[in-house]
Amino acid sequence: MTYKDLDIESKRKYYSLLCDIITQERRFNLEKVIDLRTEHFVPVIENIHKAQNASAVLRTCDCLGLQEVRVVENNNKFAVTDDISLGANKWLNIKKYNTFENNTKRCFDDLRSEGYKIIATMPHDNDINLQDIDITQKTAIVFGSEVDGISKEAIDNADCFMKIPMYGFTESFNISVSAAITLHYLTDKLRQSNIPWQLSEEKRLNTLIHWALESITTKDKIAKELLNRVISMK
Amino acid sequence: MTYKDLDIESKRKYYSLLCDIITQERRFNLEKVIDLRTEHFVPVIENIHKAQNASAVLRTCDCLGLQEVRVVENNNKFAVTDDISLGANKWLNIKKYNTFENNTKRCFDDLRSEGYKIIATMPHDNDINLQDIDITQKTAIVFGSEVDGISKEAIDNADCFMKIPMYGFTESFNISVSAAITLHYLTDKLRQSNIPWQLSEEKRLNTLIHWALESITTKDKIAKELLNRVISMK
Repeated sequence: MTYKDLDIESKRKYYSLLCDIITQERRFNLEKVIDLRTEHFVPVIENIHKAQNASAVLRTCDCLGLQEVRVVENNNKFAVTDDISLGANKWLNIKKYNTFENNTKRCFDDLRSEGYKIIATMPHDNDINLQDIDITQKTAIVFGSEVDGISKEAIDNADCFMKIPMYGFTESFNISVSAAITLHYLTDKLRQSNIPWQLSEEKRLNTLIHWALESITTKDKIAKELLNRVISMK
Repeated sequence: MTYKDLDIESKRKYYSLLCDIITQERRFNLEKVIDLRTEHFVPVIENIHKAQNASAVLRTCDCLGLQEVRVVENNNKFAVTDDISLGANKWLNIKKYNTFENNTKRCFDDLRSEGYKIIATMPHDNDINLQDIDITQKTAIVFGSEVDGISKEAIDNADCFMKIPMYGFTESFNISVSAAITLHYLTDKLRQSNIPWQLSEEKRLNTLIHWALESITTKDKIAKELLNRVISMK
């Protein structure tokens, strides 16, 4: 059993207890950031092989307030470089798909069961432009590997395809650039719309608990444990 | 004397002669791309020290149709990595400032004399948001180094400062991501506006000649020279 299995009232109590351990300043910061988080858009990173690219995408997600990221690892082991992600991965919910027979399909199935439409990015395809994406529906956006683009499984299983209009000789953006442009454009449009994009009460609590736990240093933990011993000795 | 010193009619003739050497397909491609190029916005890259970041910015500029880039090298030698820029630098007009006493100031002075307003990117500053930039005026946007941000000279000499709104724990975007988001946002807005953003006739010809010269392979040059010899032997 983890805290995610608690009922909502117990989650509230648990978070409240955790707030006794972390500093007030930290709590203030967590609660400021949580109000800005969204899972209306979920980036899916498929088979990225350069750690610096994967890390840059995670840092971008944190900066843009995107809480959920799915990572599909069919071929390439996803390794995060801390000096590029600047620890952003600590604050995101990253779900990995690397143990299934068809990781991409399993990831897409999960997303669909959660109500997401799936759009794959295809730089050479003539499908819809980034600017024409309908943002009213919850949407997952798939970014493929640096060399091969998105996989055949992704092409076969996506709902539609999008591209960023290009005006040059170079025919594709760098993967971290492509993700940044796409995710910034969509989240900016979302934040200016009337679409409810904030996290649900339950997701909000789960995330706050996760963040509070991440914020507790070993020193805090030892201090708390010693305090508990003192109290129980009374 | 270079082709840039020719009068406009001679430039037209020179370009026409060059078109006899390059393939028709290449000419078609050059003329398709030139119509999409703009110098309404000019990115200024100041003291970038990681080659992969500088190269990614150049690749982004080409993809977005930004023809002019200024590179200020006060401390760091600007080196372009071909596997990241994908040769984008070949198609851009890159002006370097690395020999003056104050390279940043000299670059800004040049830009002002060409009618540009200068906006510096400052992730920690509370100045205008990207979304609030007035795009009617020709504008240069300054991106600073990965570690120190923009220089004191840039801060002292910029007209104003901008930031991309952020919603996370990480307090800054990667430099190539920051440039991509900013330049995509501004060029997208520009292309949807009524502002005349295309290159002037003279700049258009200069660029076409530059591109045509870049397109001529050694094989083409030898073939042309041999043809000239045959003709003169008649």
